[in-house]
Amino acid sequence: MEAESQTREQKYAADLTSIKEAEARIRPFINKTPILSSDALDALSGKRLFFKSELFQRGGAYKFRGACNAVFSLDDDQASKGVLTHSSGNHAAAVALAAKLRGVPSYIVMPKNAPQRKVENVKQYGGQIMFCEPNLPSRESTAAKVMQETGAVLVHPFNDGRVISGQGTITLELLEQAPNIDTIIAPISGGGLISGVTLAAKAIKPAIRILAAEPIGANDAALSKAAGKLIALQEINTVADGLRGMLGSLTWPVVRDFVDDVITVEDSEIIEAMKLCYENLKVAVEPSGAIGLAVALSNGFKNHPAWKDSTNIGIVLSGGNVDLSVYGIHPKDDE
Amino acid sequence: MEAESQTREQKYAADLTSIKEAEARIRPFINKTPILSSDALDALSGKRLFFKSELFQRGGAYKFRGACNAVFSLDDDQASKGVLTHSSGNHAAAVALAAKLRGVPSYIVMPKNAPQRKVENVKQYGGQIMFCEPNLPSRESTAAKVMQETGAVLVHPFNDGRVISGQGTITLELLEQAPNIDTIIAPISGGGLISGVTLAAKAIKPAIRILAAEPIGANDAALSKAAGKLIALQEINTVADGLRGMLGSLTWPVVRDFVDDVITVEDSEIIEAMKLCYENLKVAVEPSGAIGLAVALSNGFKNHPAWKDSTNIGIVLSGGNVDLSVYGIHPKDDE
Repeated sequence: MEAESQTREQKYAADLTSIKEAEARIRPFINKTPILSSDALDALSGKRLFFKSELFQRGGAYKFRGACNAVFSLDDDQASKGVLTHSSGNHAAAVALAAKLRGVPSYIVMPKNAPQRKVENVKQYGGQIMFCEPNLPSRESTAAKVMQETGAVLVHPFNDGRVISGQGTITLELLEQAPNIDTIIAPISGGGLISGVTLAAKAIKPAIRILAAEPIGANDAALSKAAGKLIALQEINTVADGLRGMLGSLTWPVVRDFVDDVITVEDSEIIEAMKLCYENLKVAVEPSGAIGLAVALSNGFKNHPAWKDSTNIGIVLSGGNVDLSVYGIHPKDDE
Repeated sequence: MEAESQTREQKYAADLTSIKEAEARIRPFINKTPILSSDALDALSGKRLFFKSELFQRGGAYKFRGACNAVFSLDDDQASKGVLTHSSGNHAAAVALAAKLRGVPSYIVMPKNAPQRKVENVKQYGGQIMFCEPNLPSRESTAAKVMQETGAVLVHPFNDGRVISGQGTITLELLEQAPNIDTIIAPISGGGLISGVTLAAKAIKPAIRILAAEPIGANDAALSKAAGKLIALQEINTVADGLRGMLGSLTWPVVRDFVDDVITVEDSEIIEAMKLCYENLKVAVEPSGAIGLAVALSNGFKNHPAWKDSTNIGIVLSGGNVDLSVYGIHPKDDE
């Protein structure tokens, strides 16, 4: 059994050992985030809900775990040349912060139409921003040019074993804080978060159920899981800007083999979940971060075979980098 | 010195002893709320800010501390007849919750135009609501009638030594969590919170500076403090619905003798502070709750003699019971 499980683990980009190593490596730098709960949300869902609040992670999202593990995994020689990523979201700021803590340069390739707020987030951690055209070829050629010129190491947002191992540390904390959890719901996009969370959870507690939460307008994981093969979407349409990515070569095998199911929700359910977090948990959660609660409250879950066996549910609130404009409020100076 | 300080303390509705007794009494029931911080807000204020986050208190506001102490101070015979209050705010829900935990009835007199959300908050804790006309005579006559019929004990929102002692437990936690604090900024309305916080703080750390934060449109405390006598306002006008009360006979002497100053801010500064809490601390704070940050960032504080000597500032985020309508968003079903 053990040998088999070991062989099996080796097929994937991370395992419990690499995740525990990641935890030891990043512990001095990360926040151990609290579990929040709400009687009102328990009543609404009919379950006991444990909200792992990564919005209180440094940089405001879980992304710092993976970025920190990747940056601190480098040997001094590699690290000295700096790190590089292309992202317009939380991963960009997370890499910049990790590099700052390591004392090495970071280069962040961002589309020139990236929101000012995201640009500021990177700048505040000392990241050097290279603007590119808002399309994939420009992004990739700009990143390639920076790598060539600087020798910086690429830290991919999700298709990287070090990043996946870092995200898996969420599970180590969660199962220590709430050991009776029988189900975990976490967002899925590129799959770094769900892969890390799943590999750790299934290794520690094999009977645990993992449900991935995906917007209906970016449902590549749901379609891929149903088809048993990786399916790419031609078009993405969701309010959850953090969930517009698609699965990669390292994350798809984990989703295929270990994630129990993918449940999709509408954007309106995501926005409603954000409001419920605000009013009941008293926390700011971005759309991508609120999708786990949206799934817990959805008909898709209530009609799912997993519903009746789920009693204590861990929900990953993945991030809180949101301004009030998502509710339709635009500060005057934005106009 | 000690004798003098004891004589002096006896003039006030609470002292360090009653506050420590309150802490022991309510400890099994309350949340020890976390201290939040933000590099960005520190940079904005030029100070180190420690946010005591009472929005994570049970019932969503500090009010539960005082209500809990009052309800659990009663002997069994008194308690069995229940407790009563008149309030349309956080104190109403706090009394209902405390009564529920003690297993005794609670009667809450509310104006019949009270927001549905506030009514629901009381109902969820099993409070029995008696509606009155939205004016003081109706409120008082309704409360008197309920007291006569039931024998319930009145728990006043602030003009009550047990309530003031309960609110003072905030300071015991705050100075344990952040011992180097030299200044505390807390909201002022009826004065229960500031009185408890101040009496504890000055007893533990006599050199500490206490600044009360008040909306300009409800500035009875600022006027009273400046005049050296209690001044009532004819008109109240502020977005901070929790700060529309006026000082009482038990709270004014504490404000007069121990609070270092009252600093007022505009409603627009309060709303801006709410947004800053949301975007930087990731928490929901109601207008009354955000006023401490508004003061910390105000010109009134920057031009104040206390400014240069304040380095580590404790700010009481007093509550988080807010829905998104304060930002100008009204859910459809409200219309």
